[in-house]
Amino acid sequence: MDKKIPEKVVSRLTLYHSIVSEYIEKQKETITSPQIAKLLNIDDSQVRKDFKLLNNAGRCRVGYDTKEIKETIETLLRFDKNKDAFIIGAGNLGLALAKYPNFNSYGLNILALFDNDPLKVDMQIADKKIFHLTKLPDLAHRLNVEIAVLTVPKQYAQTVADFLVASNIKYIWNFTPCILETPKNVKVWNESLMASFLQFAFKEIE
Amino acid sequence: MDKKIPEKVVSRLTLYHSIVSEYIEKQKETITSPQIAKLLNIDDSQVRKDFKLLNNAGRCRVGYDTKEIKETIETLLRFDKNKDAFIIGAGNLGLALAKYPNFNSYGLNILALFDNDPLKVDMQIADKKIFHLTKLPDLAHRLNVEIAVLTVPKQYAQTVADFLVASNIKYIWNFTPCILETPKNVKVWNESLMASFLQFAFKEIE
Repeated sequence: MDKKIPEKVVSRLTLYHSIVSEYIEKQKETITSPQIAKLLNIDDSQVRKDFKLLNNAGRCRVGYDTKEIKETIETLLRFDKNKDAFIIGAGNLGLALAKYPNFNSYGLNILALFDNDPLKVDMQIADKKIFHLTKLPDLAHRLNVEIAVLTVPKQYAQTVADFLVASNIKYIWNFTPCILETPKNVKVWNESLMASFLQFAFKEIE
Repeated sequence: MDKKIPEKVVSRLTLYHSIVSEYIEKQKETITSPQIAKLLNIDDSQVRKDFKLLNNAGRCRVGYDTKEIKETIETLLRFDKNKDAFIIGAGNLGLALAKYPNFNSYGLNILALFDNDPLKVDMQIADKKIFHLTKLPDLAHRLNVEIAVLTVPKQYAQTVADFLVASNIKYIWNFTPCILETPKNVKVWNESLMASFLQFAFKEIE
């Protein structure tokens, strides 16, 4: 993957991917940049500029070929790269993420959930089993899982993160509102829902 | 609010805010830029650059004054501005967001949830009542709510969005993986969890 694509472009490419996927479902073979721009409330020229990254894949006189655009984005963003992960914390957020319909098509495979609540252990959510947290080190090792999606309550976030680090987890997608302390070889991606909302409020809400 | 602050900076400022809030809870009066940089795995100079936006608030010889930094960020990002909102869809994601501990301190007040499932209607989640969706237009009008957090299943996303628009909702924070079609005067903020993960995978996962 070309590490030089800016984050904002990666973000827009995934939105374009959603749009062309919907067009394909509706049997539409082409899409134009104004159609995409209108749906995303952005400028037409921005869409065309981003599409240049795709080497004008699928361009034709009446628009872009939806299937080619879809495949080109998937290749560029490496959707085919296998990203097996565990969800840690089977609360509402963990369950919502386990059920989230679109993760798989982007190459993120949630293999199982973990919790320490005996009432939740052994339940199935969207074909995924909930295991007791104590099983994690062994399962992470056997299944070669290095990605954890952390959705535990705030007060346990650091303790559980320490446990993940000790279990050889290398990447933590952190949904807790805590800043985690981890060794340098463990990468943390803070999913700050509030930060995202504040950007919205900041830009748009009067 | 200064509309010129880039989104990435807004995002980092909210992370700094979390960190100084934790420091204040731990009775620490000062914080240094290397301490913050280390926690976020970013460069020290980045933190100092961002802090210049705060007009060097709270700077002292041993670091920054945590309380002053916190207040300055709150003023700059207008946390005091009242942002009343409804959550639409009382599934796992809607419930998770209703319980999310930190929304209030950022000025986002979730007043109620809405669903069309009779089994959920009238339940209470984190002191918030779940109403039937048909009550929304009247409540939005009476409470002057213009912000909706959309967490309904994918297949209902557009229909419910149309209903929100007809109910005078002006801002939709869209957690569904759908691109919504709305009139120009309604602003949609697409919360693409997958886009966020792909940025992580793209930047960090080997």
